[in-house]
Amino acid sequence: MRFHFKSIIHILGMLLIINSVFMLTALPFSIYFQDMQHWAILKAFAITMGAGSLAFFFTRQTERVVKKRDVYIVVTFGWILMALSATLPYLFSGAIHNLTDAFFECISGYTTTGASILKDIEAVAPSILYWRSLTQWIGGMGIIVLTVAILPLIGVGGMQLFVAEAPGISADKLRPRITDTAKRLWVIYIGLTLTETVLLRVFGMTWYDAFNHSLTTMATGGFSTKNASIAHFPNPLIQYTIIIFMFFAGTNFSMMYFGFQGQLKKVWNNDEFRAYFLSIVGLSTVFGLYVGYQLYGDIELGFRDVAFQLVSLITTTGFVSADYTSWAPFLTILCFILLFVGGSAGSTAGGIKTVRHLILAKNGWLDLKRQLHPSAVIPVRLNGKAVSGEITYTVLAFVIIFLITFVIGAMLLAMTGLDLMTAMGASATSLGNVGPGIGSVGPVDNFAWLPPMAKWICSSLMLLGRLELFTVLLLFTPFFWRGN
Amino acid sequence: MRFHFKSIIHILGMLLIINSVFMLTALPFSIYFQDMQHWAILKAFAITMGAGSLAFFFTRQTERVVKKRDVYIVVTFGWILMALSATLPYLFSGAIHNLTDAFFECISGYTTTGASILKDIEAVAPSILYWRSLTQWIGGMGIIVLTVAILPLIGVGGMQLFVAEAPGISADKLRPRITDTAKRLWVIYIGLTLTETVLLRVFGMTWYDAFNHSLTTMATGGFSTKNASIAHFPNPLIQYTIIIFMFFAGTNFSMMYFGFQGQLKKVWNNDEFRAYFLSIVGLSTVFGLYVGYQLYGDIELGFRDVAFQLVSLITTTGFVSADYTSWAPFLTILCFILLFVGGSAGSTAGGIKTVRHLILAKNGWLDLKRQLHPSAVIPVRLNGKAVSGEITYTVLAFVIIFLITFVIGAMLLAMTGLDLMTAMGASATSLGNVGPGIGSVGPVDNFAWLPPMAKWICSSLMLLGRLELFTVLLLFTPFFWRGN
Ligand SMILES: [K+]
Ligand SMILES: [K+]
Repeated sequence: MRFHFKSIIHILGMLLIINSVFMLTALPFSIYFQDMQHWAILKAFAITMGAGSLAFFFTRQTERVVKKRDVYIVVTFGWILMALSATLPYLFSGAIHNLTDAFFECISGYTTTGASILKDIEAVAPSILYWRSLTQWIGGMGIIVLTVAILPLIGVGGMQLFVAEAPGISADKLRPRITDTAKRLWVIYIGLTLTETVLLRVFGMTWYDAFNHSLTTMATGGFSTKNASIAHFPNPLIQYTIIIFMFFAGTNFSMMYFGFQGQLKKVWNNDEFRAYFLSIVGLSTVFGLYVGYQLYGDIELGFRDVAFQLVSLITTTGFVSADYTSWAPFLTILCFILLFVGGSAGSTAGGIKTVRHLILAKNGWLDLKRQLHPSAVIPVRLNGKAVSGEITYTVLAFVIIFLITFVIGAMLLAMTGLDLMTAMGASATSLGNVGPGIGSVGPVDNFAWLPPMAKWICSSLMLLGRLELFTVLLLFTPFFWRGN
Repeated sequence: MRFHFKSIIHILGMLLIINSVFMLTALPFSIYFQDMQHWAILKAFAITMGAGSLAFFFTRQTERVVKKRDVYIVVTFGWILMALSATLPYLFSGAIHNLTDAFFECISGYTTTGASILKDIEAVAPSILYWRSLTQWIGGMGIIVLTVAILPLIGVGGMQLFVAEAPGISADKLRPRITDTAKRLWVIYIGLTLTETVLLRVFGMTWYDAFNHSLTTMATGGFSTKNASIAHFPNPLIQYTIIIFMFFAGTNFSMMYFGFQGQLKKVWNNDEFRAYFLSIVGLSTVFGLYVGYQLYGDIELGFRDVAFQLVSLITTTGFVSADYTSWAPFLTILCFILLFVGGSAGSTAGGIKTVRHLILAKNGWLDLKRQLHPSAVIPVRLNGKAVSGEITYTVLAFVIIFLITFVIGAMLLAMTGLDLMTAMGASATSLGNVGPGIGSVGPVDNFAWLPPMAKWICSSLMLLGRLELFTVLLLFTPFFWRGN
């Protein structure tokens, strides 16, 4: 048999069980805040746990065989099933009334996109809002496993590149190493989430808000408990804290692991980290001073707002502290471009990722050299080593397919009636898992008003982007199913 | 010596001499129409001829050595010098008052872009308007030489690909073959220009208008003698004629050569031609019926307007018969995308070109197959032959650098104060050598209102796009000048 469906169902069942346990953690919130959502949560838990257990136990006898083709199915349908089951608390609580909207909100959660159809976030019960934040945090955990373990295994989009740098991973014997590496990175993930929570509490947020925003910061998710997002908290200490933790969340977790071990030189010598760090500092300084001096007349506020938005967009977090589309046309276009940047590979950030841009830029420069010396072999160098032509090629192909998907997405969205700007913004922000876009899905808007078809298109784009395109696209080819 | 500057100056002098002779052909028009521009034309001729002759004769003793590096300089500066000298008739006649605008109009001519800073075209003297049309026609001739002879020689952007198909070209002994091939294709170019002139005259244009529009059709240039462009001529016969000749102008001239020889099967078996033909027919039919039925309530008019605009954009001609930005948002986005398509390689069309898109699409599909079979070698096939990985790579790299240039161009334009949409439209249409864009440089606008800096940015983009990027970009690298 080409596919091992029993194994696939077994794993999907396990995922549902895990998801249901996470769901249950919303119960204490409901009880504490007395928001009357305990039955909604319990029902959602029971159904998810029940379905997961059935799938898990009825397939438990089978041999544990999972081949490469099965992995694509597990990953894609795993993400979809998690999101589908996660709609239950929304639907049972009445926070969202229809499946289209609920699925949009959930896939936006698990893909850590953070685009929202909720018009009045603050009217939603605290336990349900916590569940909303948690979907992003779970998504972030999933991304860590995906990037350090699964994508390198199936070789998607040049992901081998940074994994060589991941602590404790080598080419063979993947299974035990996966668990090791993922666990180490999860410890960092959990540790940073808790640290940020404490800091935000100290700087004046409630424990609840501090915890929720920390969950969605580390996931580079961007769901907020406030309608105005981080603009609700004009406190500079809070905003700078979030800037720093967004920066962490967009950093390769392996680099953070080395950083916490005190190997700062190793971190600084990492080309991607340096490019990521320097571009953020450089752009924030230049445009921060411009906005502060020219537009606000308040250097600190201008710098903070710009730094916040640039970091938020580059790391694909999508928190909003100011309406970046109101600054100046060329800053709007810069922010639109930043939707395509993405944080570092090996972080929870979405998008194309810094390392791919770095290879693209270096390679573009070398192409000019190659033009003059067509017979010479001039490889791209990354972290002092030559990058194989194959990986360079894969990176170029990935970027092109990313852009083609963006264009098709924008085109389809425009066909549902969206104007050009909004369609481009929605397509880019969904595909890059950022959250806010430009046009009528800008930083001060939401996605509630989109026609249902547009919501499904955005949902698909989020999934495509989050799973590095190939994982999902492959399922739409006849030869994946036929064999060959 | 690394560069052979005397040879370079010799060739540039020759180009100026040729240009001055072309300039002189405006004199009969001035006399016939009695538009009083004879002195302006004669002065421009004298200066251009004088400067060219000086350069030509003072370098005549040198050995005729031209190496690869010299070619880049000749091509780039050749185009710039042609445009610079072409400003003289505008400036002397007073049709345009400053160098920025005059250079914009001229580089728009020689790059066959067709973007214009003239606010009232019909107020310009007929002989000067003829000169304006002629700059495009000369540019088109230049492009034919560039694509069949020069670019394959220096190996830019995968141009080897279609040249294998060009009649009478083989790898060695380039000099005599170049002349042969270019001459054959020029015969087609001239023949089609005259044929179109006669047809347009028969269908009701004046000889003058017919000739001017034919010059700019075959160059895929798009300069018109009328403010409303082709919308000025609502005659279906005229519009269909222009559609067909735009289609010809965007076809690989080698294919037309075979076509006129009756080798229709060979033409049809050419993958690029088939993709070019079928995409035009398919898109025109689907969207033509939509616009005709849904928006106009007149099927024929809808089909004609849509077919006209699609062909005009795909072939990068840029004639306008209707305001395509007024149809529907998704059609605006389609037209915006079409700014990136470009006609066939080996035609006078600009842009990325059909064959590159074809390789991109086939390769993207195969990437999914390669994902499943990482060790298998699965090459792209074009015209029944495997395309080397090197060429596929070159195509991907070209497209990415094209898009990066577009983004940087849009960003720079936005910094001069243009809104996002206009900046993107102007960048795309300049780089793709199309002419009209979207936003405030749309089909019913012109470029006169742009700030001077924006005009220089657009001028640079036109040149970059026309010379397939690398030719120009290379001149900005230190290693080009330093050596190695
Ligand atoms: K996000
Ligand atoms: K054009």
